Amino acid sequence: MRCTDSHVEMYFLNNTLSMRRRRVSQFAPLLIALVGLPARGKSQLAHRLSRHLNWNGESTKVFDCSEYRRRHMALYGSHDIFRADHQQGSAIRRQSAHEAVQDAVLWLKEGNSVAIFDGTNITREQRRELNEGITDMGFRILFIECVCEDQQLLERNIIEILHYSADYKTMSEEEAIDDLRKKLEHYMRQYELIDAAIENISFVRVENMGETVTAHRVSGQKESGILGYLSGMRTMPQTIYFTRHGESEYNVLGRIGGDAALSPRGERYALALAEHFNSLADVEPVAVWTSELRRTKQTAAGIHAPKRAVRALNELDAGICEGLTYEEMQERFPQEFAWRDQDKLRYRYPWGESYIDIMTRLRPVLAALQEEHNVVVVGHQAVLRCMLGYFLDAKLDELPYMNVPLHTIVKLTSYGYKYNIEMIKMPIDCVDTHRVQPKNCSINRTPDEALVTVPSHYDTLPSNLWQASDTQL
Amino acid sequence: MRCTDSHVEMYFLNNTLSMRRRRVSQFAPLLIALVGLPARGKSQLAHRLSRHLNWNGESTKVFDCSEYRRRHMALYGSHDIFRADHQQGSAIRRQSAHEAVQDAVLWLKEGNSVAIFDGTNITREQRRELNEGITDMGFRILFIECVCEDQQLLERNIIEILHYSADYKTMSEEEAIDDLRKKLEHYMRQYELIDAAIENISFVRVENMGETVTAHRVSGQKESGILGYLSGMRTMPQTIYFTRHGESEYNVLGRIGGDAALSPRGERYALALAEHFNSLADVEPVAVWTSELRRTKQTAAGIHAPKRAVRALNELDAGICEGLTYEEMQERFPQEFAWRDQDKLRYRYPWGESYIDIMTRLRPVLAALQEEHNVVVVGHQAVLRCMLGYFLDAKLDELPYMNVPLHTIVKLTSYGYKYNIEMIKMPIDCVDTHRVQPKNCSINRTPDEALVTVPSHYDTLPSNLWQASDTQL
Repeated sequence: MRCTDSHVEMYFLNNTLSMRRRRVSQFAPLLIALVGLPARGKSQLAHRLSRHLNWNGESTKVFDCSEYRRRHMALYGSHDIFRADHQQGSAIRRQSAHEAVQDAVLWLKEGNSVAIFDGTNITREQRRELNEGITDMGFRILFIECVCEDQQLLERNIIEILHYSADYKTMSEEEAIDDLRKKLEHYMRQYELIDAAIENISFVRVENMGETVTAHRVSGQKESGILGYLSGMRTMPQTIYFTRHGESEYNVLGRIGGDAALSPRGERYALALAEHFNSLADVEPVAVWTSELRRTKQTAAGIHAPKRAVRALNELDAGICEGLTYEEMQERFPQEFAWRDQDKLRYRYPWGESYIDIMTRLRPVLAALQEEHNVVVVGHQAVLRCMLGYFLDAKLDELPYMNVPLHTIVKLTSYGYKYNIEMIKMPIDCVDTHRVQPKNCSINRTPDEALVTVPSHYDTLPSNLWQASDTQL
Repeated sequence: MRCTDSHVEMYFLNNTLSMRRRRVSQFAPLLIALVGLPARGKSQLAHRLSRHLNWNGESTKVFDCSEYRRRHMALYGSHDIFRADHQQGSAIRRQSAHEAVQDAVLWLKEGNSVAIFDGTNITREQRRELNEGITDMGFRILFIECVCEDQQLLERNIIEILHYSADYKTMSEEEAIDDLRKKLEHYMRQYELIDAAIENISFVRVENMGETVTAHRVSGQKESGILGYLSGMRTMPQTIYFTRHGESEYNVLGRIGGDAALSPRGERYALALAEHFNSLADVEPVAVWTSELRRTKQTAAGIHAPKRAVRALNELDAGICEGLTYEEMQERFPQEFAWRDQDKLRYRYPWGESYIDIMTRLRPVLAALQEEHNVVVVGHQAVLRCMLGYFLDAKLDELPYMNVPLHTIVKLTSYGYKYNIEMIKMPIDCVDTHRVQPKNCSINRTPDEALVTVPSHYDTLPSNLWQASDTQL
């Protein structure tokens, strides 16, 4: 059957009109304004989101209102400045917010993608002004409101603030708790929750650190990606363990890539690793993630926890150079070898990958990892460089040269939005696979110049090596 | 200051316990179950989401409950079968849902990522059973509830159903409207909205086709990505125009890549294109998206609409082959040329890109485009092959050989979740740049075998060509 098309046409027209009203292009830079009381996890959200966006190629920076406030007050006095009727305090807070927004706008005007304004923005009037000002400048704006009614979560956030906030460095615990409680009361008196029926703004409400996430009038591809990230973000204390596989037969021979088995020393590392995790008194790994390659599976085999082989954790694909030594690569593909040394981050092996490529394929794993606690990731050199670089906010160009040695457990523990790193070296000998960038990276260099930093390795698997006692044992 | 760590530890413990409860790994396959009354946009959402997920490398399939129902009933009778007290109807509907879920589970067991169960799932009991059954099998499950209170949207959805549903092919308009209204009433009597306080399930509620999107207890990286997509999805009727830039000087010379200006014929196409859009009586383009390259900007210049240069729309980067003719490529890099012919989809130019690479970088643009209506995209051959392939559900291996000729407007118009394509050829001569795959793709082929399908081109820019009258004018 056919029915008349007049409805459809009328709809099209309305639709077109409503689309016209959306003046700001989807590709315009975006200001994210946080909304909510202190201790609702705003700063943690801001910095984690910033890390995520930067990794995804959107240059992002956090503008923290309280840092601007501290510049105006050499020393934090007390909660009094947060009272609505505290004139000097109000003026300073207004001024700080103004400066933070100004710098955020400057950042966007310089060609960057996203600025995160980490303030409280608790009144309707503040939000209306911000919304209009930013939209008039041709930028997009998204509000993210953090609400937390879960007393346990709130308590944890408050403990974190007392631990890490610059404001409480010089106070005793009791003073600080009392001060923060009063500061919260001042804010609560002024706070107006975002009301979708009254306020004409795009916003996401995050309740109880992500238990419920509501998006209202959120459009635009940047915003959609952000919403997805927020729903998966658990800002819980977190420990993650990383390790490379045990020494493989290819490591001994100085060959790259491939799917070799562990060397006898690598097998002993696997035993030591299992022993380490299985005997931890306080925690127990909830899962072990390996790549699909034999050497990581063998390394993880003895750990008492469910195992999952994840393709995205496979080592960088060296394409036509898989299985070669660096010496052989220099001999057969000297141009490729020089190109790689010139820009190891972006260089792609023919039919293979670059570091940038594995950064892209690691995105879902990193997204998955942010929800986990006490997971052990058994991976590979290049892949772990990227993953550790993500959590430690490394510069991209440093990634390919990070030192992630064999036979070492890397333990990351979150504090606030940052991570502490601890390297636990197991006393089992292994080769070194870390090759630093040589001085001469030109295509015309001699083989000696190209190979000067290649770590020493065996040319054939030595039958007696495995009996030699490890020096550190 | 330091405060006692006992709170933190206690929290850690609770947190660990609550994580243990989440039995199903984040990497497990996912069943998505739709929830909602007829005409709420469920099927459209299912198929668009499926297209998006497949493009992102998650093999996804929709299992449409009503198709299973139709297999049991050669001919749709009337709304009566949807009454709760209609015994035969109820049995058939239960049986159909059961079969759809069975096939969905089979799909997941075969190693695929996502199955979308497109049914109504309107009772709590149905959802509880499904949730438990799927979780017990070790799969993840996410419910997506579609709610629509906006009468205008509802009316449009109903019109679409009357247009496209197999059930109403043989009815008159009046009969169909009456039948659908009664069917809706039967469902409304049985419908229980998802209640977060009672039901222990992960769900996303999509209100008014995306105006408000709420996620409750949604975790997992697949689910996060899906939530992001849902918030940006506008299931509105949509027309999008695509065109390649006008013929460029490099096109005339048979050179690939580069940043050449338009040829005089290309300039005439730019004028014709502007004339075409500026004189459309019924619609007016709301925006023109170009790449950052001169030839697309020049082509778009005369169209009366805001323009935006989008880096992700730039042509495939041919790396070391930028600016070469195919003949020169064969001469200088015969191995590369043969490799490309062997697997044009995955082949990457050294320091350049593959089709797979541009598919990845096009993701944000495609996400942005789904929210737009009457946008004109002025792009390039490889980039438009990928974009059109996305909307037309082309197979990946076909993308690099799709014919997207110069001087042609491609108009896509949505109907339901599919798109109609219309090719509007402008009567202005131009070269052909379409090179089909040669028969011999081996590295040992002769230059003649390698070059047999290269389209003819000029070796220098002919000064008199531009005066020649176009044959079709």
